[in-house]
Amino acid sequence: MSKKIEVGILMGSDSDADVMGEAAKVLKEYGVACEMVVASAHRSPKRTMLYATSAEKRGIKILICGAGHAAHLAGVVAAHTTLPVIGVPIDSSSLKGLDSILSTVQMPGGIPVATMAIGKSGAKNAGIFAVEILALGNVTLRKKLNANREDMETQVAEKDKKLKEKYS
Amino acid sequence: MSKKIEVGILMGSDSDADVMGEAAKVLKEYGVACEMVVASAHRSPKRTMLYATSAEKRGIKILICGAGHAAHLAGVVAAHTTLPVIGVPIDSSSLKGLDSILSTVQMPGGIPVATMAIGKSGAKNAGIFAVEILALGNVTLRKKLNANREDMETQVAEKDKKLKEKYS
Amino acid sequence: MSKKIEVGILMGSDSDADVMGEAAKVLKEYGVACEMVVASAHRSPKRTMLYATSAEKRGIKILICGAGHAAHLAGVVAAHTTLPVIGVPIDSSSLKGLDSILSTVQMPGGIPVATMAIGKSGAKNAGIFAVEILALGNVTLRKKLNANREDMETQVAEKDKKLKEKYS
Amino acid sequence: MSKKIEVGILMGSDSDADVMGEAAKVLKEYGVACEMVVASAHRSPKRTMLYATSAEKRGIKILICGAGHAAHLAGVVAAHTTLPVIGVPIDSSSLKGLDSILSTVQMPGGIPVATMAIGKSGAKNAGIFAVEILALGNVTLRKKLNANREDMETQVAEKDKKLKEKYS
Amino acid sequence: MSKKIEVGILMGSDSDADVMGEAAKVLKEYGVACEMVVASAHRSPKRTMLYATSAEKRGIKILICGAGHAAHLAGVVAAHTTLPVIGVPIDSSSLKGLDSILSTVQMPGGIPVATMAIGKSGAKNAGIFAVEILALGNVTLRKKLNANREDMETQVAEKDKKLKEKYS
Amino acid sequence: MSKKIEVGILMGSDSDADVMGEAAKVLKEYGVACEMVVASAHRSPKRTMLYATSAEKRGIKILICGAGHAAHLAGVVAAHTTLPVIGVPIDSSSLKGLDSILSTVQMPGGIPVATMAIGKSGAKNAGIFAVEILALGNVTLRKKLNANREDMETQVAEKDKKLKEKYS
Amino acid sequence: MSKKIEVGILMGSDSDADVMGEAAKVLKEYGVACEMVVASAHRSPKRTMLYATSAEKRGIKILICGAGHAAHLAGVVAAHTTLPVIGVPIDSSSLKGLDSILSTVQMPGGIPVATMAIGKSGAKNAGIFAVEILALGNVTLRKKLNANREDMETQVAEKDKKLKEKYS
Amino acid sequence: MSKKIEVGILMGSDSDADVMGEAAKVLKEYGVACEMVVASAHRSPKRTMLYATSAEKRGIKILICGAGHAAHLAGVVAAHTTLPVIGVPIDSSSLKGLDSILSTVQMPGGIPVATMAIGKSGAKNAGIFAVEILALGNVTLRKKLNANREDMETQVAEKDKKLKEKYS
Repeated sequence: MSKKIEVGILMGSDSDADVMGEAAKVLKEYGVACEMVVASAHRSPKRTMLYATSAEKRGIKILICGAGHAAHLAGVVAAHTTLPVIGVPIDSSSLKGLDSILSTVQMPGGIPVATMAIGKSGAKNAGIFAVEILALGNVTLRKKLNANREDMETQVAEKDKKLKEKYS
Repeated sequence: MSKKIEVGILMGSDSDADVMGEAAKVLKEYGVACEMVVASAHRSPKRTMLYATSAEKRGIKILICGAGHAAHLAGVVAAHTTLPVIGVPIDSSSLKGLDSILSTVQMPGGIPVATMAIGKSGAKNAGIFAVEILALGNVTLRKKLNANREDMETQVAEKDKKLKEKYS
Repeated sequence: MSKKIEVGILMGSDSDADVMGEAAKVLKEYGVACEMVVASAHRSPKRTMLYATSAEKRGIKILICGAGHAAHLAGVVAAHTTLPVIGVPIDSSSLKGLDSILSTVQMPGGIPVATMAIGKSGAKNAGIFAVEILALGNVTLRKKLNANREDMETQVAEKDKKLKEKYS
Repeated sequence: MSKKIEVGILMGSDSDADVMGEAAKVLKEYGVACEMVVASAHRSPKRTMLYATSAEKRGIKILICGAGHAAHLAGVVAAHTTLPVIGVPIDSSSLKGLDSILSTVQMPGGIPVATMAIGKSGAKNAGIFAVEILALGNVTLRKKLNANREDMETQVAEKDKKLKEKYS
Repeated sequence: MSKKIEVGILMGSDSDADVMGEAAKVLKEYGVACEMVVASAHRSPKRTMLYATSAEKRGIKILICGAGHAAHLAGVVAAHTTLPVIGVPIDSSSLKGLDSILSTVQMPGGIPVATMAIGKSGAKNAGIFAVEILALGNVTLRKKLNANREDMETQVAEKDKKLKEKYS
Repeated sequence: MSKKIEVGILMGSDSDADVMGEAAKVLKEYGVACEMVVASAHRSPKRTMLYATSAEKRGIKILICGAGHAAHLAGVVAAHTTLPVIGVPIDSSSLKGLDSILSTVQMPGGIPVATMAIGKSGAKNAGIFAVEILALGNVTLRKKLNANREDMETQVAEKDKKLKEKYS
Repeated sequence: MSKKIEVGILMGSDSDADVMGEAAKVLKEYGVACEMVVASAHRSPKRTMLYATSAEKRGIKILICGAGHAAHLAGVVAAHTTLPVIGVPIDSSSLKGLDSILSTVQMPGGIPVATMAIGKSGAKNAGIFAVEILALGNVTLRKKLNANREDMETQVAEKDKKLKEKYS
Repeated sequence: MSKKIEVGILMGSDSDADVMGEAAKVLKEYGVACEMVVASAHRSPKRTMLYATSAEKRGIKILICGAGHAAHLAGVVAAHTTLPVIGVPIDSSSLKGLDSILSTVQMPGGIPVATMAIGKSGAKNAGIFAVEILALGNVTLRKKLNANREDMETQVAEKDKKLKEKYS
């Protein structure tokens, strides 16, 4: 039996799926059910609005939105829901993400968008951040998060060891 | 009897009225009826969408949208209408309009926003550009526009004369 | 019998033809006749001025200008006509279009240039925006524009479906 | 009897209290208990680390961190906890917040910081975003959030009415 | 009897006279006759073109052009003459001269503009650079330039002395 | 018999020779003798200073300096001579020339550097600008420059013709 | 008896003394003798070179250089000595220090400049960094540095206490 | 018998080893013993803090820290030691190092980080700068540094000679 979807991952174009898949991968690792959705703020405004306004009723808890260029998707979704919205700027124009990061993060007072780094790092962190939120009501997730942090320390120590072997 | 409104001037906040008033001033000079509207892409998405989707039926021909920060207003309005949408980035954050200009101009393919300069120069030019569009179907407006261009040449010549008197 | 040309697409160099062809492609789809013109603001100022000053008399309605580097073409053309001028910044220097976008959009008050995004997205949108203007006097074009918007919604829905098939 | 503190608002310097007070004000409006803490990533690293590592045990649920210049506070705090960390870049150097926004948002994969806009808008939104998170486990907060959104629509409508009275 | 004018100082607006006066002041100190001219690339294109195309015949040797925003003046003048054109970007928009500097300096191959710093420093240096050019055919000017350089060394030494008195 | 060298082309590194060769190519076309010199402001300050201070006596008339990163070469050379110094920013760091352009153009009042565009366009224009200066004392060069400008108009017309053939 | 000067603080102009005085103040607190020197890379290149080349023989150990605009001072000084050179970018142009920071920090390989933050924070840190270097050969300085770090922790704790009193 | 390690070279990720190896190479050439360490400010905060706080006792004299994105490593290390900390911004995000350079250099007053250029040039210079510091207490190192500077002059002269042969 499939689990109830808790996180919606929206992207402005299917060409963003490779980047936004990083968020889905993280959520899967933590056992959080999510769905990936193509919904453009500009080319499919009705679809986007409908998704945003119905998310709360559908039991969705968190929305992750990735977009490039003048990235309005996260802001538009945030305007239609009070669920936490996480924005991932994508580097898809010649300005290398400077446009998408400012379009996502500089939201006016009243409608927050939690902005992550540009690209895959940001998408991965969006997934982790969603888990950090869900862990407030789920001790198992918190334990996994904390354990993973411990693992990171260990992995760095191992990389350090390999580096020293290589350079000595 | 009041004329039919042909241009809607939208702004995200009433604090933008001073800037966007420059567009209204130009339209008034050309005898084009317009209305100034407060409609935020983020704080009043329904109002904004309603205005955008009904504009064509109401006989509005052109929409001018001014906003600061992550300026989504013009893009959101453009997503709901095929009327020409003109965007005016406003300098209201610490980034001095770099955020609003990139959020307005870097629209993805499919949904155009005609972007003007930041601030009052841009608002004034939005008004003139709207008249340039309307003049395609109105010879009187074209003549006025062309006459005003001649006046600009004359005004520059007069300023030049005064400058020379002052500095000689 | 060939249709009367309504839109002139100018570019500073023939190396910009690939980008500016996106505008021509859109216009062709809508059945709007256009011509592509090489005319540099700097290397062929007379040719450029002549084109701009004679456009109105030749029946041209809208001018689309694409240029890179310190992109003066749209501004120079706009200085010689009151027809609507649409500017497309092109990414042809090491600064990745930051120079061309600011050179195009930051026009001083009095002479508007309607600026689109950098590169092919911008050129495509310049074509669509020209159609949006022409549709003010042409119900058939408006219907096509509105139909295309409906298609965009459908296409996004289809892409969403494919994405879900791929990732589930 | 005082309520249990759920949100910690950290700032690198007491000179940031005016900005970060916007977050506290929002939380107070929603009845969420918070504490304001001066803790510099650079000048008091032990204090900062101690706060971050003990927050979970103390029952803190969310950490909001504001800092200027090379703003490391949010990142350093996030490195020591898996609680959700919200970053607010502050405009306190000559670069007008470009430094603090990039230092806050461009976190590498693994350690997320949810970044808000520069300055007071961002601090206010940090407060609202914290409430949006807490509302996942608190129906009353969700209702208040949704009601406030309705109020925003109404307020925009009222401002619109006043604007029209003023300009007509 | 007045000397023959060798340098034309053009500016897009009389509001730039304060900045461009720095160039005139330098030229006066060196006894080089110049004229200050208001000529906008956008608002008075004919006047500007006429000035540029006739400058060589009138005996003008060097053209200094100052402009703000999307500063096209120097580029437009350079397109109509092979006399050396010096560009001075002026800080008159919210982007603090980033727009005017890129619009002036990033000229495409074929039409050079010698760009100076933004604002008064740049206008002063435009005057000095014009003298450095004229000195190639005028030994007296070269001697004055070299003497002034010696004076600069002396002035720095004197300022150094005063600084030490003040701080010791 | 070799002609007297009139222009020195300096570069901070031999890796810049490909870019700076564009300036030499132009000068050769105009029959102006030049020399290419490797002289770093940082790695060979004595050599650079010696070249700059002795240039006037050696009969050099103009100095063209190309450098990347924190491009100090043009400024350092200009500090040691009153001959006209032309700066060419080179795109050799990850910042794509933003560093070298600001390091070259933002000279303080007193010591001008005539800055060209980044890279090959700038180097080519540096060569043309040097010829424009030398043409003030050489009617043959002026005629060639003016003739070349006419040729540019013709070339643009030819490219326009080819474009139309290709796209019709 | 006056102590031997160990640190030279150079600045391009006496108008930078207010900023660079922050470095001197720190050094005085640590009992490190320093001298403030006006020496411009551009207006007094001989003086600057002489100072740099003779510093080692005079017993100077560290050079701190502050400059604005295209800030070449630190790089030019570093080119003439192998003593550690610390650069302080100063915000004295309309670009708010973006020019001076890139001109100072982006040094090519071979000649390092240790760059601090823009303005007074950077000047203060230049003083502290100089002490951190000198402390490598001076245990008393190291103890003072470490003690001051402890004090910083205490001061932050006190500010935190006051903040809580004010806001509770 | 191995020499006592005097310089620690830290990097946030083993993927930075190629860049940071430039620093190690320089130190090896000068006979200064160093160690390369993987220690992330975010993924291994304990390890990083432990290294920083124990470095002084272990006899380490200088710490070189390289990191990309929101580069906090150098600042975090500097917060835990009064040894000189040198920061190397690494170009590992789509913003090409603009993020890492501002995150590294814009440190608030009190905790200095000596910032080098982005990437390999910066890493190489970090190594040289460390030697320049160590040379204050080591005459042999100073002599080598000064000799290497002489070599640089010679190498530039040789490159100049080759360039002239190639282009003549």
